[in-house]
Amino acid sequence: MAALSVVAGLVLAAPASAYEGLITKQSFEMDGPYTTVGGETIAKVRVGFETIGNLNAAGDNAILVPHFFSGSSHFAGRYKDDDKARGYWDAIVGSGKALDTDKYFLIGVDSLANLNTKDGITVTTGPASIDPATAKPYGMRFPQVQIRDFVNVQKALLDKLGVRKLHAVIGASMGAMQAYEWAAAYPGMVDRIIAVIPGATQDAYGIERLRHWRQVITLDPKWNGGDYYGGPEPMDGLTMALRLITLDALAPEWGESQGRKWAEADKDPAKAMGNAYAVQGWFDKAAGARAALSDANHLIYLARACELFQVGGKSSLEEGLRAIRAKTLLLPSRNDQLLYAEATRKVRDLLAAQGTPVAYQELDGPMGHLNGVGGIAQANDRIARFLAQ
Amino acid sequence: MAALSVVAGLVLAAPASAYEGLITKQSFEMDGPYTTVGGETIAKVRVGFETIGNLNAAGDNAILVPHFFSGSSHFAGRYKDDDKARGYWDAIVGSGKALDTDKYFLIGVDSLANLNTKDGITVTTGPASIDPATAKPYGMRFPQVQIRDFVNVQKALLDKLGVRKLHAVIGASMGAMQAYEWAAAYPGMVDRIIAVIPGATQDAYGIERLRHWRQVITLDPKWNGGDYYGGPEPMDGLTMALRLITLDALAPEWGESQGRKWAEADKDPAKAMGNAYAVQGWFDKAAGARAALSDANHLIYLARACELFQVGGKSSLEEGLRAIRAKTLLLPSRNDQLLYAEATRKVRDLLAAQGTPVAYQELDGPMGHLNGVGGIAQANDRIARFLAQ
Repeated sequence: MAALSVVAGLVLAAPASAYEGLITKQSFEMDGPYTTVGGETIAKVRVGFETIGNLNAAGDNAILVPHFFSGSSHFAGRYKDDDKARGYWDAIVGSGKALDTDKYFLIGVDSLANLNTKDGITVTTGPASIDPATAKPYGMRFPQVQIRDFVNVQKALLDKLGVRKLHAVIGASMGAMQAYEWAAAYPGMVDRIIAVIPGATQDAYGIERLRHWRQVITLDPKWNGGDYYGGPEPMDGLTMALRLITLDALAPEWGESQGRKWAEADKDPAKAMGNAYAVQGWFDKAAGARAALSDANHLIYLARACELFQVGGKSSLEEGLRAIRAKTLLLPSRNDQLLYAEATRKVRDLLAAQGTPVAYQELDGPMGHLNGVGGIAQANDRIARFLAQ
Repeated sequence: MAALSVVAGLVLAAPASAYEGLITKQSFEMDGPYTTVGGETIAKVRVGFETIGNLNAAGDNAILVPHFFSGSSHFAGRYKDDDKARGYWDAIVGSGKALDTDKYFLIGVDSLANLNTKDGITVTTGPASIDPATAKPYGMRFPQVQIRDFVNVQKALLDKLGVRKLHAVIGASMGAMQAYEWAAAYPGMVDRIIAVIPGATQDAYGIERLRHWRQVITLDPKWNGGDYYGGPEPMDGLTMALRLITLDALAPEWGESQGRKWAEADKDPAKAMGNAYAVQGWFDKAAGARAALSDANHLIYLARACELFQVGGKSSLEEGLRAIRAKTLLLPSRNDQLLYAEATRKVRDLLAAQGTPVAYQELDGPMGHLNGVGGIAQANDRIARFLAQ
């Protein structure tokens, strides 16, 4: 739904364009200590955030964009003119795009225990942060945080920014968990949620998969019970965790396109255990690069937060969904191997049965779960229509 | 298709019954050194096998039952009267069952590098075996073996047993790879194959998943480059690998049935990282018990053999399938997360297009890949009909 202008009796769609202003990462610090939903205290909470567009006088044109597991507040645009990559959902952000920078005040926020502690820009509070009580990194002594804690920190930020009502919360994967949680926790403040490649709960299968992600790290002796700061870090374990995550987030169809090519033309995998397939070389490189920017304990905390998630913190999914009255758009991925479309169809049916307005559309593409990140452009018009309703 | 008897003009189905004779594990040693398809030499190859039923005079009523990744030759029956468990496909083996012990000579064979080195009964040759050249375990110096090597060892055994023709080869998962490979490698000897939860190739997605299984072991410092024999073994890495394998072999539907119960009633997972969900406790126990019977290097070698697999050892799936002329029955599992039904539909279409007689039926159940093991009873009649054609 591009912006429209009427010229000489013709209705013309103005071309949609990416957001070209530079983005500034800002830092938000909560007033006083924060008490987690688990009842523990974090003396000082700081998280990064970035905004695009302008908040209107009524404070009700804001759209919050919480991020996925390995993401950050950087959902669109560039920090510098020569940035190679743009924010992850740049395809649907800009003038005339679904997340229309002419209409909405868009806000991305770094989560607690954000993964990207070493990218030079993410601001987060987690196990790698200094515990004021000891002047050393928390490590595994950092309180166990939950999705609801991420939401509560965002709420404090929105209050400070003067946001009175959220036109929408839109997020992918772990970001969708936060969207669901917003609607359940602050129903009066949220008009709409858009849950992309979402999960409203973790079933046993997902719980155990998430535990694999975090526990492979603990096999690496350099992990050292989480106390590795200032010494060698558990890069092998962290890289393995990121390999698991990346593969789980892809799909067999993606694999088909990669085939059985060898990593090196003269090194037949059939000849030696160390000879790799091209896909294996690709994973080593991609996961290794990612690991260099990440903190192992933060990955453990994020995985645990996702294990613990069931919307609304209730004992059943049905009960948790009951509080959701916001208009809801569900955008699962057809071939998601991680958060299954089937589970989201169940959420759709439960919401519809209780009278919550709910729409559903499946994303397509060969990338499995990642269709909700790299393939989001296909949903631009659907999201624009939903936001205009 | 139960055995039929005609009594007073009525056709009665005799009740099918499990095989109640006791099974004897036998040992087969190849004559002289074996040269792998990779061109390396194993001085002495010994594998275990077990048979049920009798070979006919023509030597053409044999059915070979190669096993899945974590399996053994023990496909049915009991070794001793007080055995708690029966062989993995006991449900379809016996008088009047699909693998009819009154009609067929059934043969199970332990693979090379079989996982179950410590169960007290499996006989195999692999990294844990003593290298006669050094009088020490091979460790990672054991030659890289492939599915075709498993088949070649079986061929030598069948020759010794006097089997001239295989009425069928039937196997699940890695066993199905061997069934495909038999049909491609020895087309004149194989009348039928039944490929259960099968994969005729590994695509990039599968290749990388298998590498995870084996490489998590190498994170454990006790693995020590594969030289752990006589010292502490990498049980943490091995247990983690078995957890990955077990979860990958299940399905989200299974997870739904397990729910979000806690492992211990007074230990809320939200309260501490060490507090587990019931599913996590189950995995620890199941994988730990399995690890106690298994060898870590053997797991590495088996995973690698599966990575390397493409039927017929050809450069494309199409080319590999071309040699298969045996009547083929494909039994994938509808919700298999490991070897996808979709990939097997492609194999079906390729076989049909080249004129190979092929039938296809999907297995049902909540267990994903494991529907092909625990849920095999549902295919009893289909298999019986196919074997009678």
